[in-house]
Amino acid sequence: MSLGDDKASCAHLREACVESQQVFRGHFLDVRRDQVRLPDGKLASREYIVHPGAVAIVALLDDGQFVLERQFRYPLGRAVIEFPAGKLGRGEDPWHCAVRELHEETGYRAREWAYAGILHNAIAYCDEGIEIWFARGLSLGERHLDEGEFLDVFTATPQALMDGVRDGQVTDAKTLIALLWWQQWQAGAWPLTWQPEPMGVLSA
Amino acid sequence: MSLGDDKASCAHLREACVESQQVFRGHFLDVRRDQVRLPDGKLASREYIVHPGAVAIVALLDDGQFVLERQFRYPLGRAVIEFPAGKLGRGEDPWHCAVRELHEETGYRAREWAYAGILHNAIAYCDEGIEIWFARGLSLGERHLDEGEFLDVFTATPQALMDGVRDGQVTDAKTLIALLWWQQWQAGAWPLTWQPEPMGVLSA
Repeated sequence: MSLGDDKASCAHLREACVESQQVFRGHFLDVRRDQVRLPDGKLASREYIVHPGAVAIVALLDDGQFVLERQFRYPLGRAVIEFPAGKLGRGEDPWHCAVRELHEETGYRAREWAYAGILHNAIAYCDEGIEIWFARGLSLGERHLDEGEFLDVFTATPQALMDGVRDGQVTDAKTLIALLWWQQWQAGAWPLTWQPEPMGVLSA
Repeated sequence: MSLGDDKASCAHLREACVESQQVFRGHFLDVRRDQVRLPDGKLASREYIVHPGAVAIVALLDDGQFVLERQFRYPLGRAVIEFPAGKLGRGEDPWHCAVRELHEETGYRAREWAYAGILHNAIAYCDEGIEIWFARGLSLGERHLDEGEFLDVFTATPQALMDGVRDGQVTDAKTLIALLWWQQWQAGAWPLTWQPEPMGVLSA
């Protein structure tokens, strides 16, 4: 059974841009308000954030544990447990971004990488997509945090992380979705295609 | 093995608010920029959205299928497959919001409900939390969409939805995380506590 063809079946749902305006441009947030024409011909406004996209990395140690981070997330007012992740630079390839962010934030580089999938985390008000990448064959070097970046790196078993989700201690969306991918991959249902770490992203 | 005590272990990561400013207030988005003091004493700015929170509903038909929606999501420029969901009204109880949104958007009401967990979908720039609720014992009435709201309701098997995730057709974060909960519940790993639909949320 299929979910249907979105492209063919969404014409009666489509909202068309009439006019677009940037209403706030900060150091980080780019906020737009568009006038749109609804399927019934009426006008409405849509406010949303333009985001460059991001990556999250499921880094697997040889003993099966995950590499994780604990980072203070200001909007939530607390430290959050999450997989390593980062925002794409301008024009940056997502895989290269994953290699770079894992190394900068945790010090690890990987022998092999595999793309899992993309998720859209705030479809009502942001165009952000987060690609999930797996990494294995890890070797530890030195990390290089950005100025003003503070985070702890630690490791945990998949079971400990899953228990943390069940108990409400782990609530970060990309981390939970990465666990869904990990679980389906482990079960053999969603195979991954592994490729060697790309050359030239990190200096040797 | 545990993930550690976040409250005790995050003091060296904490960012403290120095000053807070509303930089944009739209019909939908409330954008703030705060000056914060970093753990090393330096100042930085944090831009983020204040959001009332939301719910997503895994509505289970008696034959095991899910109730799903296809809705045009303007920031992505396409129709998205997702579980029914909605934003909390001011002071609204999340469970009541789930009952209301399921009924308004799909026409279904449920005999029993169970809370699964909360997810935080955009921890870098939004305080939004989305509670996931399960509903079963469904009966179909009439739906009541908001003015200017257009969406299709359809049903699919869990397998079809999971295949859609694997193939990249289903990418909405709350939907993927609800699937993780559904799967763990089905496997007996994360039990749910079912309660009768609360009285008085819907008129009879």
